[in-house]
Amino acid sequence: MPHDRIRLGQLHEKIVSAEAAADLIRDGMIVGMSGFTRAGEAKAVPLALAARAKAAHALNEPLKITLITGASLGNDLDKQMAEAHLLSRRIPFQSDPALRKAINAGEVMFVDQHLSETVEHLRTHMLGPIDVAVIEAVGITANGGIIPTTSVGNSATFAILAEKVIVEINLTQPAELEGLHDIYIPTRRPFREPIPVVTPESRVGLPFIAIPPEKIAAIVVSRKLDSASNVLPPDGETAAIAGHLMQFLEHEVRRGRLTSRLQPLQAGIGTIANAVMHGFIASPFHDLTMYSEVLQDSTFDLFDAGKLNFASGSSITLSKAKHDAVMPRIADYKPRLILRPQEISNHPEIIRRLGIIGINTALEFDIYGNVNSTHVGGTQMMNGIGGSGDFARNAYLSVFVTKSIAKGGALSSVVPMVSHVDHTEHDVDILITEQGLADLRELAPRERARLIIAHCVHPLYRDALEDYVARAGARGGHTPHVIEEALSWHVRARETGAMLPGAVRASV
Amino acid sequence: MPHDRIRLGQLHEKIVSAEAAADLIRDGMIVGMSGFTRAGEAKAVPLALAARAKAAHALNEPLKITLITGASLGNDLDKQMAEAHLLSRRIPFQSDPALRKAINAGEVMFVDQHLSETVEHLRTHMLGPIDVAVIEAVGITANGGIIPTTSVGNSATFAILAEKVIVEINLTQPAELEGLHDIYIPTRRPFREPIPVVTPESRVGLPFIAIPPEKIAAIVVSRKLDSASNVLPPDGETAAIAGHLMQFLEHEVRRGRLTSRLQPLQAGIGTIANAVMHGFIASPFHDLTMYSEVLQDSTFDLFDAGKLNFASGSSITLSKAKHDAVMPRIADYKPRLILRPQEISNHPEIIRRLGIIGINTALEFDIYGNVNSTHVGGTQMMNGIGGSGDFARNAYLSVFVTKSIAKGGALSSVVPMVSHVDHTEHDVDILITEQGLADLRELAPRERARLIIAHCVHPLYRDALEDYVARAGARGGHTPHVIEEALSWHVRARETGAMLPGAVRASV
Repeated sequence: MPHDRIRLGQLHEKIVSAEAAADLIRDGMIVGMSGFTRAGEAKAVPLALAARAKAAHALNEPLKITLITGASLGNDLDKQMAEAHLLSRRIPFQSDPALRKAINAGEVMFVDQHLSETVEHLRTHMLGPIDVAVIEAVGITANGGIIPTTSVGNSATFAILAEKVIVEINLTQPAELEGLHDIYIPTRRPFREPIPVVTPESRVGLPFIAIPPEKIAAIVVSRKLDSASNVLPPDGETAAIAGHLMQFLEHEVRRGRLTSRLQPLQAGIGTIANAVMHGFIASPFHDLTMYSEVLQDSTFDLFDAGKLNFASGSSITLSKAKHDAVMPRIADYKPRLILRPQEISNHPEIIRRLGIIGINTALEFDIYGNVNSTHVGGTQMMNGIGGSGDFARNAYLSVFVTKSIAKGGALSSVVPMVSHVDHTEHDVDILITEQGLADLRELAPRERARLIIAHCVHPLYRDALEDYVARAGARGGHTPHVIEEALSWHVRARETGAMLPGAVRASV
Repeated sequence: MPHDRIRLGQLHEKIVSAEAAADLIRDGMIVGMSGFTRAGEAKAVPLALAARAKAAHALNEPLKITLITGASLGNDLDKQMAEAHLLSRRIPFQSDPALRKAINAGEVMFVDQHLSETVEHLRTHMLGPIDVAVIEAVGITANGGIIPTTSVGNSATFAILAEKVIVEINLTQPAELEGLHDIYIPTRRPFREPIPVVTPESRVGLPFIAIPPEKIAAIVVSRKLDSASNVLPPDGETAAIAGHLMQFLEHEVRRGRLTSRLQPLQAGIGTIANAVMHGFIASPFHDLTMYSEVLQDSTFDLFDAGKLNFASGSSITLSKAKHDAVMPRIADYKPRLILRPQEISNHPEIIRRLGIIGINTALEFDIYGNVNSTHVGGTQMMNGIGGSGDFARNAYLSVFVTKSIAKGGALSSVVPMVSHVDHTEHDVDILITEQGLADLRELAPRERARLIIAHCVHPLYRDALEDYVARAGARGGHTPHVIEEALSWHVRARETGAMLPGAVRASV
């Protein structure tokens, strides 16, 4: 059966064990691995490598690598590799608790990058060279082209630039995924041409990763499923957030700024963005399209509801139930799906051209509209900026969503000043919590503060923010602050667990 | 003589006084005016309007407008309009001390926008409609096309979208500017095509602004010169900054990452960026090109030195001496120059495609590489983000420059945490002060802090930052901070005028 998936016969002899393939990876190497939002990652080789690292370290032999991926990996791979102390440097995104701990302890150097940019850095030799690429595939074409599985991520550029390529043929990934992918690589500067994507449906590349087959140094057969998505189902608060967005978009249609087909939609990874996308099912909008990075359960629910015409992404990440429903029918969905390299799904050129409505999740935002997506308390990394910056900067409409409070009310998601900025006031149009929506477009900071406090803040924190903004405004400035108190909520949260005295008690 | 400049004869009868033209602008209107980096602004009508506002307000009659421009205006126009209390809202950039004061007092609502984005907001009706556009021109073609002067800015889109257009024919602007401009307007979404600019030299539009001539409601004749640039000449510190950059670029050429022709250069407005560009004169680089927003004295010095082959921008802003040398010979320079709409000069699509080396000025940056370009002490607006974000986000190489100290050493330009973020760590590759250069590419925050403190900080502040980073690192986190001290330098500067006790004395 693996042989059916490898249509270039001369490659059959390259099939080896995961351990033998992992042996190609040596201490100090830069390794590129497939995988994006826990989809389509190479599964067997990283595990074998982590096991080897444990054994090597027990013998005091060095084995550390720089690991570059598309985005987050599933199957606890980042955990296994972090706990084996295999990773010296990790680029550009992760979402694993064990790896996160190592990053925050300063043990793993984490480079938190816009997801569209990593391959530009590789191509211009700011990063790299890639010694080994490890790519999950459903198969290899008769010409040696690698057919990716449930994500494309950075796999194509890794394979093109790597010295050696290891392919993991995953037999549990349906062969019908072939034809889903559209692999386009921008031409080299200074002769780069416009990227010809002009609609979410545009097919502009090849359905496989084209590399000289002799670069394929090893092939490993694997049978592990992608991890199931860990998003939570919609709840009352996420439904309220979705409701505010739908109401706002209806208003925009009435004002003639949008049609009822809207513009291509993007939604970030995670529970809230997925829930917000579910809100489109009961909306008056129709013939929707997505031009996004990750396609989650909501994408297929929108297909099934007849709301969505087409979805372009870089990966498919589903819950167990949705995976079991979708994958046997993937051939039916395929005419309405494209998976692209993340450089293309997230490319500023295309996001600006298509006029995307981008919906991303904030960890916290401030009264002036600056957004923190990454750092708890200003210091502790959660996952990384991911693609949110690629979309927020160039979107037609940049929406950020979050619940107004966290930890049972001990923390407010709306603060005087964010403790870390990932998206500046310049890149944030609309803020939504379950409390309501603030439309910040064409407003000065003082006006933004009034709207955000009136519409987005939890009542527990409203008085305190109104007091802050009044005292700050009296001091003057385009963006008024009581600078010695600007981060005091974070200081108090660090010291007492709550942003305001009594905030936890009051919320009960 | 004005009649020679207006080749469509039927428009001759539209010539009126500045006062009569200004009467077309009424209370509450949204007005778009030409002008970018104090170049090519309409000069007579704004003055007449400011005078009328003063008179109206003396009679308690309301006269306030929303004013949108390309960028900053010269000839004290923003000052005149601010002092006449004419401006209720001002978009997207300014650099005038009187207007700045009104903005910081909360009297004028200032919307600080990426310069590439304003016309997208107008086109999608988030902003507008434009009631009246006031555009400086060297002339009008036989078809009624408006020929801009020393800047294009947002003039084309203002004229296209405005209900009425006032043209100011400026007889002191050389008629030879005709042919310099390349006016390209992106097609409308959802049918937008790739923008066909593939090199700085690409000409893709028309040499004039094409509108139906019947929209021209009035023509005013003016004779005022553009204001001279107020940049200071290079000094020892700016020469040191330039030297560090040249040395770094030579290193990049040796590593094979760049050729000795480099990649298209962009430099922000102002003294330091202009001085850095002068550094290329004595460099080994050759056959350079610029794809920038403002072309300053250094552009023409580089032409004259035989270093620069071509320069694309949105405006030409020169010192008095350089203006007197260049303008009589503008026809000689014209084959190597293009002025474009700021949407195109600053477009993310093109900046990413061309692989620009972007050099912009920071007000302050922090030990992790976040940059504040706009807010003194976190609250007081200087000028605005301008185009720095358009370039920094999408550049091949994003460089920020500043002197390491200000106010005789009372302030450090390198701080534990910036008090306002315009450019996040994700968008900053290289930081340079006169002390040295920090190459932040592919580094984690803890590594960045070590480099920045070692290379960029003034010795006066090095011990304090080393102490901060050591105590922060001991607390842990991907981006370590002693959060209750993170803004303490700004608090102390506000209270005592100096960031550290004794900092002023020590510097003397």
